[in-house]
Parts: sequence; structure tokens; C-alpha cells
Amino acid sequence: MRGAMIYAPGDIRFEALDDPRILHPTDAVIRTAVTCVCGSDLWPYRGLEPMDEPHTMGHEYVGFVEEVGSEVTSVKPGQFVIGSFATSDNTCANCRNGFQSSCLHREFMSTCQADYVRIPHAQGTLVATDQVPGEELWPSLLAVSDVMGTGWWAAEAAEVKPGSTTVVVGDGAVGLCAVIAAKEMGAERIIAMSRHASRQKLAREFGATDIVAERGDEGIERIKELTGGIGADSVLECVGTAQAMQQALRSARPGGNVGFVGVPHDVAVDGQELFFSHVGLRGGPAPVRRYLPDLISLVQSGRIDPGKVFDLTLPLNEVAEGYRAMDERRAIKALLKP
Amino acid sequence: MRGAMIYAPGDIRFEALDDPRILHPTDAVIRTAVTCVCGSDLWPYRGLEPMDEPHTMGHEYVGFVEEVGSEVTSVKPGQFVIGSFATSDNTCANCRNGFQSSCLHREFMSTCQADYVRIPHAQGTLVATDQVPGEELWPSLLAVSDVMGTGWWAAEAAEVKPGSTTVVVGDGAVGLCAVIAAKEMGAERIIAMSRHASRQKLAREFGATDIVAERGDEGIERIKELTGGIGADSVLECVGTAQAMQQALRSARPGGNVGFVGVPHDVAVDGQELFFSHVGLRGGPAPVRRYLPDLISLVQSGRIDPGKVFDLTLPLNEVAEGYRAMDERRAIKALLKP
Repeated sequence: MRGAMIYAPGDIRFEALDDPRILHPTDAVIRTAVTCVCGSDLWPYRGLEPMDEPHTMGHEYVGFVEEVGSEVTSVKPGQFVIGSFATSDNTCANCRNGFQSSCLHREFMSTCQADYVRIPHAQGTLVATDQVPGEELWPSLLAVSDVMGTGWWAAEAAEVKPGSTTVVVGDGAVGLCAVIAAKEMGAERIIAMSRHASRQKLAREFGATDIVAERGDEGIERIKELTGGIGADSVLECVGTAQAMQQALRSARPGGNVGFVGVPHDVAVDGQELFFSHVGLRGGPAPVRRYLPDLISLVQSGRIDPGKVFDLTLPLNEVAEGYRAMDERRAIKALLKP
Repeated sequence: MRGAMIYAPGDIRFEALDDPRILHPTDAVIRTAVTCVCGSDLWPYRGLEPMDEPHTMGHEYVGFVEEVGSEVTSVKPGQFVIGSFATSDNTCANCRNGFQSSCLHREFMSTCQADYVRIPHAQGTLVATDQVPGEELWPSLLAVSDVMGTGWWAAEAAEVKPGSTTVVVGDGAVGLCAVIAAKEMGAERIIAMSRHASRQKLAREFGATDIVAERGDEGIERIKELTGGIGADSVLECVGTAQAMQQALRSARPGGNVGFVGVPHDVAVDGQELFFSHVGLRGGPAPVRRYLPDLISLVQSGRIDPGKVFDLTLPLNEVAEGYRAMDERRAIKALLKP
């Protein structure tokens, strides 16, 4: 089969790789239906994460089960399945507490921009749809496997409640999906921080009621103006930089909450500032597995359409162009078709 | 009148001061019934906080109303009143959200180790008891004005729930009161981290089910052993040092919560560690005003007795000895009687 490898910052190659096979009785192998490039893939692509040697890429996937290990009974060959970027046995103490992305047997997926993928802990990780969904639903189901699940988690971590005011920091695919989540959870006012016309438009389509284009201190001031001087009930930080975190923390009201889902890079939170802010802070890798059944239903019923974040579709063998387009912000998110 | 002044680290003097008087129509003046020394008073006493010039000390108080400004109608001369270390109008947006210690008109009290005290925003800040309580209740009511309210907030911020496992980091008066709060909120297991026999004894009396004497990595390991390997549901950080914060964050399970109520000194939280921990973090000055009615009732009914944290009683004019005894850990907390 073939798949994407990163050799160095900016150097993505699509090349022949060994076919994945069942290594453990808890594995499955799937044939990729569609996959994509994630905003977090841009960290190594931009040289912002240390990299020792060339490695495979990709952690978002939907596909068809090809083969299962002897202990996998929950899915079977031929089924259409959706998973998460983090595998989970769905039975350990952390899984039972609803934090499957901290599963005691967690593995982070990193081989999904490829024709076939091995899924560890398939029994707990994969969810099959009742029937094979029409191709028009594949992008939204793919979004559920990461960006939509992550946006949902941002809203949950920030305790979005009916009638509340919610700010979304970051207008990438996760931020845009976070707007969907905030709306589904009943936020009355959803302020998207974005300075890109196409993303502002999609944010409004997803439910944003206000757009703030300013950043940093000016952005915080605008949020305060829009929230009676005190700040927002919930702020969803969907970037991962120190600037975005500071903007998020300072945009929340005393007693409000920040949910942070961008993997933090060089972020340190000052204890005394957090203390006097009275803001609650929770983040982490989204427990997507917990949300899968509900989010799949919302997609299948047509209630949400997070697949709209894919504004570029490429054949999988042009994966390198997907990275380039996202790096240069020519695309929000690139869908890849094997 | 007379009151305590700090001139330099270690230098507390009890001396003649101007009698407080009504400066604003929203003020009241009270005659102190009892006051005390707070663990947080030891930060400047130990030279760990910058200090420009000599200033008064003390922020815990119960007393008798002497005089009220023209706009104060909720309390009247002769009544026994309890307040908070932070004043609040109890009407602004933050107060209505339950965060009175972030009141838009907040002032931090700092003149209470004295015979008389001016209370700004008295209407919103003070709560009067129905009748003048017996002197035997004064210590517990005094505790409610700060350490008990703060322990309660630690438990609320850490989302202590019935049946949960709670860890308390810090065995000072706040930590001990946090044990009371965790028990009242229904924690099934309460692990107090303490290495002092007298404090361990009081923690057990207040409801601790386990004591962990180890600190740092060893302490974290012990907590993991006691919690099935994953950590505690709720951790109450009642110290304010970097070590205590790290101990707290690493003792909580994925999806658990840390409530931090020790004013942080040189504490920075690493964004990426917090992210992958899945731990929620919230702290700040306790919104004591919100809790006052309930906590006063719990004291008056005899259900809780936080006044037991006072293991040293001194006449107010020996306030300097109160600081010394607490600094040298000869006393948990010093009660001062005018």
C-alpha cells in the first residue's frame, strides 16, 4: 500500500509502505474510506516539534473493516467504522470515567494518511454504522473522528450551558466545529474570533452570532465590551499557542470556564493570574470515543454538517499539497481520497 | 484604639491607631469580638512578599456593629456580624454570578487585627446573626469568615461529590477546614496529606479517612496506590507553593479536579502537562459571602466546629506572639481577643 511520510519540516512524501496486518488479537485493519490533514499535523510540518527520524502521519479516519483479530467481536469485515485519534479499550477506569483519551492502553494514531490502517484496541475504539452511509456523509463522519469531537469537548470542558455567552478562539476546523458544539449545547451568543472572511462566513453558518476580528489585548477588550464588561461564561481555546491561551483566559468572566483543546506549545499559565481570575481551566485530548454514538446520530440525521470544514478535496497521493494548502492558509482543511 | 502593624518581616507591633470612622455612606464600623492570624499573613511576615512601608494587618473578623453609614440598612448597631476578607456589594454582575470575591467593588480587608474595624460596602458584605451568639461559638463563626469559607470553596472548586475520593494538600487551618467541607459534601474517602501528629489528629476528627505523610513524588505515588492507580477525583490545594500545586495536579485522576485556594507564590502551570493530565483546575479567593448564611447555620446547629483549628488563644495585644507561634508551627492558628 501507499501512505504519507514526513522526512523533515515541509517534506511530506507519499510512498510505498508495508501493508498493515493484525499484530495483536485486539487489532483490526481497515481500508481507508477518506482521511485528511489535521491542524496539529502542521506543528511538525512547520518544524515546531522535535523530530528524530522520518515517520508516518495522520490520525483521522473512517473506513471499511478488512480484518479483525481473534478478540474483536464488536465490528466485522465489511462494516463502515469511525474511530478516534486516540485508541481506547473502553473498559479501564479512565474509560469508565468518560476519559477514553486517557485510556490506560491508549495509543495515539499516526498512520492514517494511507490506504490501509491498523487499529489497536479495535473492540473499544471503533464504532460501526448500521449501514454503509452514503458518500456524501463521509466528510462529516470523518470530522467526527477528530475535529468535531474535539470541538464538542472544548464546549463541554468550558461548561457551555443553555443561554450562555461563548467565545471561540481559533478559526481552524476545530474552532469552527466548536461553534457547532456551542450552538447544539444551547449557547445564546457565540462570538467567533476570526479575521478571515471565508472562515467568518462558515462560523456564521455554523451558528456564530458575533465575529471579533481583533486579537490580543484589543480582542479581549472587544469581548469585554460585548459581555457587559465582565467577560464570557465560556471560552473555547482551539489553537494551542501562548497568545491564544492568554486571550482565552482574559476573555472569560470570573467564575467562567476555559476549555482548551489546541495542544499547548510553550504555554505556561501564571498561577497567581489564574487564581485572581476565578476562571476554571480544563483541556486535553478529546474523549472522542464517548461522543461517537451521539455525534454519528447528529450527522446521520442531518442536524449537523461538520464536513463543511473540508474546503479542499485531493486524491490521497497529493497529500503533500494538502499540507501546503493548509500551511499557507489557502485551505481550512484538506480531505484526502484513496 | 489599638491594632497590629507590620514594619518589616518578623516585626509585628501592637500600637495606638486612629479610631476608624464612617468614610462613605456604605461603610459600617464594628467593634471586634474576636480576630486572628491567617496563614496568608505569614507571607509578608516571612519576607516572601514585597513590602513598601509599614501597614496594618488582619482580614478575619466577627464583631458588634457600632455605627453604620446612611445607606446601610441590612445591619444595625448592636448586632453581631460576620463578614469576609473580601468586601462585596452583593449586587454587581460578578456577585450575582456567585463570585462575590470578584465583586466589581471588592476591597481586600487588611485592618482587622484591631479593636475596631471599618467595613466598606457593609450592606453587601456583612451578615448578622439572629441573636448575639454565645462566646463558645465565636471561634467557629470567626473561622467561617475566612478559613472555613475557603475550605468550602476548595471543595466546591474541586467538584467534590457524594461517594468521591478527595485529597487535601496542606494541613494548615484552611486544609483542615477543607476536610470538613469534603465530608459535608459527601466524599467517601478523604485523604489528608500531613506530617504533623496534632494536625493529623484534627484532620481525622474532622473526617479524614486516610493520612499520607509523604510529600512530592513519594506522596503522589502513595495517592496513586490508594486510588487504584489513577488518582483522586478531587484534590484541594491549600498551600500556594509550586510544590503543593504540582503535588495536587499529579494526584488527581484524568477527568478529576483540583481546587486551589492557597494564594500562589511563584507558581506556573505547564500547559502541556495540564493538557495531557485531563485535570480541571479552578481557584481563587473564596466567595465566602455566598456561603455565609449556610455556614453560619451549620455552626449554630453544632454540625460543624471549625473553631477547633484555633489551638492558641491570646489577648489581642500579644498579636506578635501569635505570628511567632504560627511561623514556628507551634500553633495551627492563633485566636486574638480584644
